[in-house]
Amino acid sequence: MKNLDLLFVLFILFVSNSFSQERPRDKEIIFGVLPPGSLNAITDVPGVKVGHFTKIEGNDIRTGVTAILPHGGNLFQQKVPAAIYVGNGFGKLAGTTQVQELGNIEAPIILTNTLSVAAGIEGVVRYSLEQKENENAQSVNAVVGETNDGFLNNIRGMHISPEEVIQAINSAESGIVAEGNVGAGTGTVCFGWKGGIGTASRKLPESLGGYTVGVLVQTNFGGNLQIDGLAVGEKMGRYPFRDAMEKSDGSCMIIVATDAPVLERNLERMAKRGMMGLAKTGGIASNGSGDYVIAFSTAEALRIPYSAEDGILVTAEFIRNDDMSSLFMAVIEATEEAIINSLFAAESMEGKDGHRVEKLPIDQVMNLMKQK
Amino acid sequence: MKNLDLLFVLFILFVSNSFSQERPRDKEIIFGVLPPGSLNAITDVPGVKVGHFTKIEGNDIRTGVTAILPHGGNLFQQKVPAAIYVGNGFGKLAGTTQVQELGNIEAPIILTNTLSVAAGIEGVVRYSLEQKENENAQSVNAVVGETNDGFLNNIRGMHISPEEVIQAINSAESGIVAEGNVGAGTGTVCFGWKGGIGTASRKLPESLGGYTVGVLVQTNFGGNLQIDGLAVGEKMGRYPFRDAMEKSDGSCMIIVATDAPVLERNLERMAKRGMMGLAKTGGIASNGSGDYVIAFSTAEALRIPYSAEDGILVTAEFIRNDDMSSLFMAVIEATEEAIINSLFAAESMEGKDGHRVEKLPIDQVMNLMKQK
Amino acid sequence: MKNLDLLFVLFILFVSNSFSQERPRDKEIIFGVLPPGSLNAITDVPGVKVGHFTKIEGNDIRTGVTAILPHGGNLFQQKVPAAIYVGNGFGKLAGTTQVQELGNIEAPIILTNTLSVAAGIEGVVRYSLEQKENENAQSVNAVVGETNDGFLNNIRGMHISPEEVIQAINSAESGIVAEGNVGAGTGTVCFGWKGGIGTASRKLPESLGGYTVGVLVQTNFGGNLQIDGLAVGEKMGRYPFRDAMEKSDGSCMIIVATDAPVLERNLERMAKRGMMGLAKTGGIASNGSGDYVIAFSTAEALRIPYSAEDGILVTAEFIRNDDMSSLFMAVIEATEEAIINSLFAAESMEGKDGHRVEKLPIDQVMNLMKQK
Amino acid sequence: MKNLDLLFVLFILFVSNSFSQERPRDKEIIFGVLPPGSLNAITDVPGVKVGHFTKIEGNDIRTGVTAILPHGGNLFQQKVPAAIYVGNGFGKLAGTTQVQELGNIEAPIILTNTLSVAAGIEGVVRYSLEQKENENAQSVNAVVGETNDGFLNNIRGMHISPEEVIQAINSAESGIVAEGNVGAGTGTVCFGWKGGIGTASRKLPESLGGYTVGVLVQTNFGGNLQIDGLAVGEKMGRYPFRDAMEKSDGSCMIIVATDAPVLERNLERMAKRGMMGLAKTGGIASNGSGDYVIAFSTAEALRIPYSAEDGILVTAEFIRNDDMSSLFMAVIEATEEAIINSLFAAESMEGKDGHRVEKLPIDQVMNLMKQK
Repeated sequence: MKNLDLLFVLFILFVSNSFSQERPRDKEIIFGVLPPGSLNAITDVPGVKVGHFTKIEGNDIRTGVTAILPHGGNLFQQKVPAAIYVGNGFGKLAGTTQVQELGNIEAPIILTNTLSVAAGIEGVVRYSLEQKENENAQSVNAVVGETNDGFLNNIRGMHISPEEVIQAINSAESGIVAEGNVGAGTGTVCFGWKGGIGTASRKLPESLGGYTVGVLVQTNFGGNLQIDGLAVGEKMGRYPFRDAMEKSDGSCMIIVATDAPVLERNLERMAKRGMMGLAKTGGIASNGSGDYVIAFSTAEALRIPYSAEDGILVTAEFIRNDDMSSLFMAVIEATEEAIINSLFAAESMEGKDGHRVEKLPIDQVMNLMKQK
Repeated sequence: MKNLDLLFVLFILFVSNSFSQERPRDKEIIFGVLPPGSLNAITDVPGVKVGHFTKIEGNDIRTGVTAILPHGGNLFQQKVPAAIYVGNGFGKLAGTTQVQELGNIEAPIILTNTLSVAAGIEGVVRYSLEQKENENAQSVNAVVGETNDGFLNNIRGMHISPEEVIQAINSAESGIVAEGNVGAGTGTVCFGWKGGIGTASRKLPESLGGYTVGVLVQTNFGGNLQIDGLAVGEKMGRYPFRDAMEKSDGSCMIIVATDAPVLERNLERMAKRGMMGLAKTGGIASNGSGDYVIAFSTAEALRIPYSAEDGILVTAEFIRNDDMSSLFMAVIEATEEAIINSLFAAESMEGKDGHRVEKLPIDQVMNLMKQK
Repeated sequence: MKNLDLLFVLFILFVSNSFSQERPRDKEIIFGVLPPGSLNAITDVPGVKVGHFTKIEGNDIRTGVTAILPHGGNLFQQKVPAAIYVGNGFGKLAGTTQVQELGNIEAPIILTNTLSVAAGIEGVVRYSLEQKENENAQSVNAVVGETNDGFLNNIRGMHISPEEVIQAINSAESGIVAEGNVGAGTGTVCFGWKGGIGTASRKLPESLGGYTVGVLVQTNFGGNLQIDGLAVGEKMGRYPFRDAMEKSDGSCMIIVATDAPVLERNLERMAKRGMMGLAKTGGIASNGSGDYVIAFSTAEALRIPYSAEDGILVTAEFIRNDDMSSLFMAVIEATEEAIINSLFAAESMEGKDGHRVEKLPIDQVMNLMKQK
Repeated sequence: MKNLDLLFVLFILFVSNSFSQERPRDKEIIFGVLPPGSLNAITDVPGVKVGHFTKIEGNDIRTGVTAILPHGGNLFQQKVPAAIYVGNGFGKLAGTTQVQELGNIEAPIILTNTLSVAAGIEGVVRYSLEQKENENAQSVNAVVGETNDGFLNNIRGMHISPEEVIQAINSAESGIVAEGNVGAGTGTVCFGWKGGIGTASRKLPESLGGYTVGVLVQTNFGGNLQIDGLAVGEKMGRYPFRDAMEKSDGSCMIIVATDAPVLERNLERMAKRGMMGLAKTGGIASNGSGDYVIAFSTAEALRIPYSAEDGILVTAEFIRNDDMSSLFMAVIEATEEAIINSLFAAESMEGKDGHRVEKLPIDQVMNLMKQK
């Protein structure tokens, strides 16, 4: 018993160190009106797993892979309803057209750097072909997103291998999700400060279905940073086109998960709201941005089996159009919070060519917040 | 001379009364970092004209028409490059597919109420057929948007006639644009307060091209009102799903004009940013929202003549992808400001079935802003 | 009794005259491999009703309205899953964005001429508002398509009234569908010959579900006519760009109905195949074409009630992606046949400015077919 | 001199052997009414180059790569306007969203097998990074399409390497294009017979601009084969759902090139017509089909430089909407012919698991054609 108590304390400490202390919500920065799930993470959606592979080597390798698994089973055999919304398509997201055509995702979702999308696809394909039950699979749709970490990372070196992608997949787990300079967020830059991985969630009241919406972001974009409404970018003098010289470019990958039984058309509508959450942080979706939102439902009743044995019809129970609005709001709030979480979690980093990106000066931000 | 002086004073007084006093910017609420044009209105884009037809009759007619003319010439003979982005398509916007296919607009843009779209189309068609030079026209693409003013207006009465639409078109002029309870904004409701027509603009520095972006909105939507970052909705206890009972529905029409020479693909990208401006005001694009952004360029060099006499090629000078980002930011800022402008300009109104919608309590809002 | 017998004989004669004798299939022109339904018409899909209002007056009014009702009940209260595919969007089809956003149709579908879309919308709105049970409706999405009959019809006269649209709706019935110069096809031109309304259907074998697919077309387009593979246009010297002078313009509206339980995403895929059927007749979807395909499912289990009383979830049984292909093929075959049917049924017509359009010279075509 | 004469004779013989003898047009099967270019190949569009890498090894490797280069220069530095149309998105085409967002292609287009898309991307990225002038490139959008050759090829073996992709790119040349069992067409199956690579072109008369449209296809799809209108599939008893058991699946990649100065919106419209050409061969775009059309313009005046030195505006001369129809017709005709060409050129092949696919029985087909 005592041992268990000790373990529990250690677990709490671990949790705290992982991210609790630094998260905005712990500092009483509250985004929106809906409550978060217990971890305030995409993994609050039951079954969702996240794995990171972080690669920091030498002076110039600052990159990684993040894998998001909609459920813990064989995704190829039990596909999930899904949709993709293209906020701004200056990006290399693989797998889009099949998701849009068939309305489902059949493999782990991978995030990495721009020039490693091929490694991402190859990793997902090899992982899927090798999975038990998939011995006859001849076609796998790999959904692989990316942002460009080339300021800190020697991206031209293409330092991610398919094996490392599989490692990220195999390390995926439920529970707390590491944020900041991890996985696909290792080398990213956001609003001029160090970006990275962020996550958040919302839990609807039981009267609205009690569903959970979880979001995970890879932040690498620019704009005029706004934190819970406070114009941080302006107050700190860091915003685009300030002297007609500074550019504000970059990308944001946004993954939206829900256990609400939502079919693909309404998942696409949820995905669209991800960009509205991004807008609230001050993002402008600049020309060079690859801003994509991938949304899926984990509802078991909506799983799409690879092979149907029982005729051509399926039965499904899903949410009506009329009752989608609270889920839309949940996506907006969770996306906004996940992006700011990524900034609070990321640490300063030095990389390629001696480039250095500072972490968001949180104390200074908190002082500004208090004046608000 | 003295008479002219007097006229000038009267003009200034008129301007002040029209909207200057009440606008947020006059109260030092500044949205974003780019400066507005001289009128802070869509009409800052040279050539753009706006006309309102306001219909307030008896106890239950509270509706109207707003016409936006991209230029003062014959639009059918000199079409303008244009694009439409569907933020949330629970709306009846007419003319969409032709704009998307051909990349242009060939008639005044009309805004009205949901059940008067037919009157809008008929008005535009009759207006266009009767225009000099159009005597051979047999096809006119009317772009007619709407929001549902049925809470204050007896919308089922279909009280707008094609003649009233033509009246709105014919009354269109450059210069100051009336805001609030006018034209298509007469009976609308926004964030639970009285909505209406709003407008704003941004002027890029010369180093970025010196272009102007103007926005006009018809606000009739819900969400969690945020004014320049301040969570007004929350602070005043007025936001969606508060007790799992309140719904937050409605629509927003957003018109974006620019004199920048932008072709239709990039106009569509600008249009997409309109929804990001809406997001910053707290809008959530609920299920029932018809949220559309219509963008056009007034650049003369990009006009599309109805009949070409000089062979099959046209020459055009337009902005590169790489230089679009500042225009994107201008759209976001101007849309946000135009929406808040509509709320500041609208007055309380009573209408159908004794329904009453209060105007935004500006003093209270200003007090909250000062605490910020 | 005798009178009834006589009536029956007259009815049969009427039916024969309506279309049976002249239809290509009766002349052993067989399109594809799937069998048609019993009427070889869109009304083979149980519940679907079609109504025509034909307006031939004086020298220059040659137009009309065709109404397609997905079922005989109150469509606003019991919406049907639906999708729209834009083959070429030089057209004024109203209602598109809401169908795409919400995935359903809630009113009779109307076809008419280009400048009467407003009348079509107003007719549908008035019809819907006045329907029993709809007394609270404040928003109706009218789906109104058109083609341009301005060669034979004084289209600028805008000779269709909302009342005539309602008349078309109220006259809709199951059973045989009149083809050729009726309703919205009264004044249309196709491949240089007289076009009009056409219809056809396919019935899948029981092993593939036994479903029916019905198609109705309003043919007003150009190209290089091909009948069951025979290059009739070429053989008769009538095809586009023959001497770099002739243009080939026009439009085609295609309505696809099925009793198969297909949700909106797969209905959109079915709709896309409509354009493939059009291609097989030699259509080229020229620049000026407004080619649209509207698809809906009449399956009762997929009806979307206006107001749900039983919580936020609905249950539905629908066809898997994997079993859609035979429905795709049925759409292609039925569309091809419906278009050719319209040409066989249409009669020569004289109209505006003395313009005359000849009917397809069927004897000559049949001679060519025999040589084939 | 005599040597040159000899060389010329040998060249002509080579040309004949490469494909001339067997092509349908040489057998007087004429598709449509527009004349082909001199080679009746995509390379009739000046500057376009095609390279094949064919991999036939052991009993079960039957696959390859085909590379299409829009011009012979540095594509990353001189991008071409481009568009992609998704006919049916059950495919893995990489690079789609960026082409749609930015309207251009910046690297060789690669076709290969479904599970080798990763190799395709990696090959294109490595090729582009290593090109002179691209030493600062950190982002490359690889457009890589595929069809599934898994019936004849051990596709799960993933037998294409990035190096082999680069080999295909480097071997690209103007002039005659090998058809049939080469490159990405090595192991494909079409309408139940051996498919492969096919190509064709159309040349518009000078009065319509004199432009060339070239098409290249990778045929791997099913349906009800129709050759110049003749129902070959039916006549030979080989068509889908014949006994409710046979499926008809597969994919088709279609590449459309033109020297006409066409911007991306109209290129997308051209791309859409590719599916109309496919429809004329009897394809049905079954559920499992990945049918994509990629269109680009080689017009020098429309090239998009990677870095602009002269401000934010570009000038371009391009074709009006109104003059696109002949180009649309050219795409339809060339696509139809390219598909049939692939069938005439392909040879019977044996591969994985002893699977054997017969070549189209051309003599039998020709007999049927004569009866026609």
